[in-house]
Amino acid sequence: MSMKLYFSPGACSFVPHSLLETAGAAFEPVMVKLHKGEQNEPAYRAVNPRGQVPVLVDGDATITQIVAIVTWLDAKFPEQQFLPKDPFARAKVLETLAWMNNTVHPTFTHVFMPHKFAGTPDTQAELKAFNGKTYAGLLQEIEDMARKAAEKGQPFLGGDKFGPLDAYALTLLRWGGFAQIDPEGYPALWAHVQKVAQLPGVARAIERERLQINLYKAA
Amino acid sequence: MSMKLYFSPGACSFVPHSLLETAGAAFEPVMVKLHKGEQNEPAYRAVNPRGQVPVLVDGDATITQIVAIVTWLDAKFPEQQFLPKDPFARAKVLETLAWMNNTVHPTFTHVFMPHKFAGTPDTQAELKAFNGKTYAGLLQEIEDMARKAAEKGQPFLGGDKFGPLDAYALTLLRWGGFAQIDPEGYPALWAHVQKVAQLPGVARAIERERLQINLYKAA
Ligand SMILES: N[C@@H](CCC(=O)N[C@@H](CS)C(=O)NCC(=O)O)C(=O)O
Ligand SMILES: N[C@@H](CCC(=O)N[C@@H](CS)C(=O)NCC(=O)O)C(=O)O
Repeated sequence: MSMKLYFSPGACSFVPHSLLETAGAAFEPVMVKLHKGEQNEPAYRAVNPRGQVPVLVDGDATITQIVAIVTWLDAKFPEQQFLPKDPFARAKVLETLAWMNNTVHPTFTHVFMPHKFAGTPDTQAELKAFNGKTYAGLLQEIEDMARKAAEKGQPFLGGDKFGPLDAYALTLLRWGGFAQIDPEGYPALWAHVQKVAQLPGVARAIERERLQINLYKAA
Repeated sequence: MSMKLYFSPGACSFVPHSLLETAGAAFEPVMVKLHKGEQNEPAYRAVNPRGQVPVLVDGDATITQIVAIVTWLDAKFPEQQFLPKDPFARAKVLETLAWMNNTVHPTFTHVFMPHKFAGTPDTQAELKAFNGKTYAGLLQEIEDMARKAAEKGQPFLGGDKFGPLDAYALTLLRWGGFAQIDPEGYPALWAHVQKVAQLPGVARAIERERLQINLYKAA
């Protein structure tokens, strides 16, 4: 069964992209240029009526939403243990994945796409500023997770194996650069992200997306 | 192993609350009065540092986030099939659950708690109005799901069994009343929600939370 991943460089689709590469899966990467509005063209709306990446197509199955795609890939590549097997460890990873996905990620959307939440320029400017500060605080929570993992000698955020939390953490810290947030302000997380970026599968996804990880420019 | 659910009447904690009642589980319901700010008191922050409901405590395990709690309850009460067993059906239910949780629910938060996203009163007022409209459109997507399920003769949003999508749909449509959205504008969804509200487990959760389902008041 052939797989396809619809992704956009630097977007949240990096999470499934790096899992697929880590699993050594055969898949066709299909680039969607969000800055050109390709997500709103009829051809793409036929794939995902909500006009977002990521979308995973696996044979007859079309799946959107990172949480659902990650769970699908976990079941498909059990040897990777993208999610822990132990029920409690698994619940805690899903807890953090859901929080990244429903809280940290949407907070950044206020900074990057304020027009999704308000119509007037002044309001959009206030949303950018206010939520940029909130975002810095949420990254601090991920910093605390990375520091605790390091202190315990635990190599990845979810346990012994690379998984969605590591890929999401990389994406979220990288986005911080667009909000004038310096990754060096989060030393444990920044060290972790740099280590994760060198894993062969992750490095292949970074190369395909041509990502620079540190986007911060001092004012 | 004893269970506890921290909940607040009418909040999103209704989702796990109604699953626990449906499973006939023995658990201690612990009410957190959000309107009194109890979620921010040190005693509650010790349970959930993020100051939100729901929290499920199951023996030694403390789990937050609806997606993680639902997955935990699905594994604990397999006979309920809160999530479908078939991998593709399961992925599609998780897709909709994640979307309700990361898109529909946070859109409503802009209407109900605009101070989470902006500091000044004018901006908060614009957020309420703008996102109230977005919210009405998202409920229309759930209406379409309910209509398609009804057309297929499928009794619940996720398939043959009552599950988290039905409980979340009830909660989200009910919240619409706070945003001057009339549930009667969503006929298939409103019929579904009224049917779901009569299931014995759901009815017990409604009774404990003393919920009125239709909060809409014509202007
Ligand atoms: N809740 C979705 C979020 C997807 C999402 O936010 N995608 C963004 C890129 S990071 C997107 O495609 N945005 C384009 C747009 O909204 O126009 C998921 O978990 O997959
Ligand atoms: N992402 C969380 C959302 C939880 C949430 O939004 N809880 C709300 C009630 S619906 C809450 O406790 N709000 C209190 C507050 O934020 O002060 C989940 O899925 O459990």
